[in-house]
Amino acid sequence: MPFSIRTDLAMEARELHPSLPGVTEEKEEHDGVSISRIALTQDEAARRLGKQKGRYITLDAPELTNRPLDLFERVSRMLADELNGLIEGIGACENVLVVGLGNRAITPDSLGPRVVENVYVTRHIKQYMPEALPGPVRAVSAVAPGVLGVTGVETMEIVRGVVEHCKPDLVIAVDSLASRRAARISTTVQLTDTGISPGAGVGNNRTGIDRETLGVPVIAIGVPLVVFAATISQDTISLIADETGLHGDEERLKELAAKVIAEHIGELIVTPKEIDSIVADMTRIVADGINMALFGADYAEVRMLIA
Amino acid sequence: MPFSIRTDLAMEARELHPSLPGVTEEKEEHDGVSISRIALTQDEAARRLGKQKGRYITLDAPELTNRPLDLFERVSRMLADELNGLIEGIGACENVLVVGLGNRAITPDSLGPRVVENVYVTRHIKQYMPEALPGPVRAVSAVAPGVLGVTGVETMEIVRGVVEHCKPDLVIAVDSLASRRAARISTTVQLTDTGISPGAGVGNNRTGIDRETLGVPVIAIGVPLVVFAATISQDTISLIADETGLHGDEERLKELAAKVIAEHIGELIVTPKEIDSIVADMTRIVADGINMALFGADYAEVRMLIA
Amino acid sequence: MPFSIRTDLAMEARELHPSLPGVTEEKEEHDGVSISRIALTQDEAARRLGKQKGRYITLDAPELTNRPLDLFERVSRMLADELNGLIEGIGACENVLVVGLGNRAITPDSLGPRVVENVYVTRHIKQYMPEALPGPVRAVSAVAPGVLGVTGVETMEIVRGVVEHCKPDLVIAVDSLASRRAARISTTVQLTDTGISPGAGVGNNRTGIDRETLGVPVIAIGVPLVVFAATISQDTISLIADETGLHGDEERLKELAAKVIAEHIGELIVTPKEIDSIVADMTRIVADGINMALFGADYAEVRMLIA
Amino acid sequence: MPFSIRTDLAMEARELHPSLPGVTEEKEEHDGVSISRIALTQDEAARRLGKQKGRYITLDAPELTNRPLDLFERVSRMLADELNGLIEGIGACENVLVVGLGNRAITPDSLGPRVVENVYVTRHIKQYMPEALPGPVRAVSAVAPGVLGVTGVETMEIVRGVVEHCKPDLVIAVDSLASRRAARISTTVQLTDTGISPGAGVGNNRTGIDRETLGVPVIAIGVPLVVFAATISQDTISLIADETGLHGDEERLKELAAKVIAEHIGELIVTPKEIDSIVADMTRIVADGINMALFGADYAEVRMLIA
Repeated sequence: MPFSIRTDLAMEARELHPSLPGVTEEKEEHDGVSISRIALTQDEAARRLGKQKGRYITLDAPELTNRPLDLFERVSRMLADELNGLIEGIGACENVLVVGLGNRAITPDSLGPRVVENVYVTRHIKQYMPEALPGPVRAVSAVAPGVLGVTGVETMEIVRGVVEHCKPDLVIAVDSLASRRAARISTTVQLTDTGISPGAGVGNNRTGIDRETLGVPVIAIGVPLVVFAATISQDTISLIADETGLHGDEERLKELAAKVIAEHIGELIVTPKEIDSIVADMTRIVADGINMALFGADYAEVRMLIA
Repeated sequence: MPFSIRTDLAMEARELHPSLPGVTEEKEEHDGVSISRIALTQDEAARRLGKQKGRYITLDAPELTNRPLDLFERVSRMLADELNGLIEGIGACENVLVVGLGNRAITPDSLGPRVVENVYVTRHIKQYMPEALPGPVRAVSAVAPGVLGVTGVETMEIVRGVVEHCKPDLVIAVDSLASRRAARISTTVQLTDTGISPGAGVGNNRTGIDRETLGVPVIAIGVPLVVFAATISQDTISLIADETGLHGDEERLKELAAKVIAEHIGELIVTPKEIDSIVADMTRIVADGINMALFGADYAEVRMLIA
Repeated sequence: MPFSIRTDLAMEARELHPSLPGVTEEKEEHDGVSISRIALTQDEAARRLGKQKGRYITLDAPELTNRPLDLFERVSRMLADELNGLIEGIGACENVLVVGLGNRAITPDSLGPRVVENVYVTRHIKQYMPEALPGPVRAVSAVAPGVLGVTGVETMEIVRGVVEHCKPDLVIAVDSLASRRAARISTTVQLTDTGISPGAGVGNNRTGIDRETLGVPVIAIGVPLVVFAATISQDTISLIADETGLHGDEERLKELAAKVIAEHIGELIVTPKEIDSIVADMTRIVADGINMALFGADYAEVRMLIA
Repeated sequence: MPFSIRTDLAMEARELHPSLPGVTEEKEEHDGVSISRIALTQDEAARRLGKQKGRYITLDAPELTNRPLDLFERVSRMLADELNGLIEGIGACENVLVVGLGNRAITPDSLGPRVVENVYVTRHIKQYMPEALPGPVRAVSAVAPGVLGVTGVETMEIVRGVVEHCKPDLVIAVDSLASRRAARISTTVQLTDTGISPGAGVGNNRTGIDRETLGVPVIAIGVPLVVFAATISQDTISLIADETGLHGDEERLKELAAKVIAEHIGELIVTPKEIDSIVADMTRIVADGINMALFGADYAEVRMLIA
């Protein structure tokens, strides 16, 4: 079907184009968490999937919807391991800036700013009272630049100013994502070394936040928290076209989809009713994963000092 | 089309059955606010619309999406006028209990509890220091009983306990509603003298809250704040059936709709991204409308005392 | 000094009258948590301390201010053990109602309503689909009745209505308390089998919530979250009186204290700047403790089902 | 008395040194709002008062505690007028950056970030679709840079980066202040053309935000939302010293005060119990005042477009 389906997950984009050259995917599963590792290596494949070339790692833990006691911490630890794997590919990264993208006042877009509130920041302590820290921990800083519609300033420009001052050797950008499947909303985390693409995320960033725009490596961590309502309409039509043999009639179906979307949908998003508590849970998982990755063996001691 | 479309608005239910006997509708428009007054007088019509017999008044102000300075207060005043009209049909109502239905922790279901926080309560002041009040104002109390899934207690039973103690001569129940059209989410208020039906609202009340269950007249005030995602899928299919002439194939389309809904949708809700601020705005409009109606000429003085 | 010092902690009241007959106190300490167990057995001692006769257990964990990784869970478990000890003194308690006192919209008074949001309720599941539960777990319900100033209805009367409907064999009432020492704000939990006294708590309940008023045993769990500002003024004066030998001049000092309090203080409360996150932490500790106590070996399974 | 009393209000600092040369104060009163205009013109006076040289305007409306219907808007309008007066002294100011200082997660320190959420930003609209605006309105942007303890980055450095990118000709900095008198917490707004001093505000900014550090004129708008608990202890001691004739004994009293403060107080703050709703009210007053001042005759039209 020719409709463009909006997804920020490389794994979902690949499902729509399963046999494209220039993409490889490895899968494994541990303790109820499946891991997909996609390497997108060729320009043409990147264009077709609408993603930058690079590595995409997706953790998926369907049991998170049941909130078993130990799974939260397990997912945080696996996220920390994968994040460390990406960091090792970059270098020592002694000075890390965490950037929380999105709008704090819109629940499904608030993941980034909330994670920033829960990351342990040490940069100022290293600078003003290093003796308080348990040895040579990383200098971590964390900002939530807000969104263009609220600040009137391009997110990218605020981040650039902070990068120029802090001179981090790594930026970790956290954002809410759009998925094609609502079932992923409370269960999935994606990491990538490509940064954030223009137009990605719930709030539709205007500019990319990546090595090219910032001059510093950018790892992006994203959690799907919405499905655009248009996706549901498009899927309904795809399914009917498949089942009814109306494939010849693509143009007309496209018009129909456009009509339903215009009448009902616009910028509408689809979420579970429990989105408030889901965002709170995923914030904890992502923030803990980042803290574990960045402070390693000093995690517990830094937590006591900072949290 | 045979699919059951979920709507809590009598006006929308009637649009789906425009020429049913036993239903009358009057419409007027003032200053950008349209008012629909439906009288549902016959059992058969009530059964077909899935609504109780009674009066339904709907205010619709599409310009609210632009938030012009003066429209909020105008809608509150019109709501107060319509509420007073319904109250006059009941009697003096010196002792009024406002009940806020829904779950405070789920943004689009939080209207009722939030309105309760903003209604001016006077019952305890009348009881313990009546001299503080500007004359013989109504005794107003307000409770948010929570939802069954959070309390483990039927909402209806908590309300019944409060009614037995306070002995109000009128209950005003406030709830979030489901609409068929997302465009109504930030623009519409419905009043009815029928109370709250079983199964209505975002949170799906198990029992009705009405004169029959409480032994006291119940006016319900509702604001549509969600569209169930299933509605969008159903509408897409209806439209395609209309346009493609597949009407003969209804059973198969029904199965298709069920498949899309099961795969994607479940209990999903559709909201605008700005739902947090929309709920805040509609809370203010409804709470102000109730306060204006219940305190009339004493409104400003009571506000200074209470707010 | 003759000034009445406001404290809801029996342990602090006893510190002010250390050698009163009719009071016994046992102390122990485990893993950084000290436990005080006071038995108040005589009427005269109860009158002097301004507390009901009964048992008061206080957990104090000063290290909570540093938020070490494992201490939260340890305090929750110790709270669960102490709560179970009190419950065993009452009986099987198959049907438990948790009541969260206080005002959700006032941060340091919001502990009770927040704990209610985090207690696992099972009463409705036992009633409507018992097969979903892992064996014969307790029927737990939980309500936050609000405060008189917001509802216009006596808290006690709303609770009484719920008790009449649910017929619990135990009520657990959770409330924010006032302490004499700010250092206790983030570190202390008090349990008592006396229920809640009139006038206790941040919001000053008008009526007691205890076995006498409800006809059911009431265990109260409280966390000190404010110091009344008047306490600081009184303490300053006490100290000066001690140090300057001005004790003869008590009446004049009393007037001075009254003057400072009237000018500056009124209903003011003193809190740490971090009160928002402290309340969030203490909510988690208390809710987990209650859940562990009430569901025992089924805790993890109930959590997966409910949370 | 020699104790340093912490206040961010020039009016209060002057009350403590009423007859200092180099300070002039004019007072007027309109409709229940008193206005004090202080000009601090000499270095020695500035040093004694602990304030920068410049103009300080304080609006005080004690009736705000009663929340009468019309006073909120009246205070906003007077704030807009005073702000316009200061702006006229600077120039046309076509490009304005509003900076909200403080910590969003600490209620009494959250005024700045909340005001930023309610200021109408137009900079991006002027840039990307100027035809949507009603004529040549100002380009307004607004950021909440967070606090050092949460970001690890000096507030000043984040602001500097935004200033370098946006090149505003005026910065308006909004912050929560500390007062000496709790009665001012819900009633007072201070404007000054001196910017924010180092160490001012609830969160104790490390660096000043002023024309010197930013290279751009800075108007600061502050609202007193806390009293430091130490103030109450100091006042109690001052009063006793006055009343008991113990003035000779200053050193000993100083030690006593230090002892009470160390035992009880530390970083404690004193607030009214209703601080959550007071901050919400004052946010609205300040944001409306800024919007009215910056958009003048276009205020209503910009509001419809933006809010």
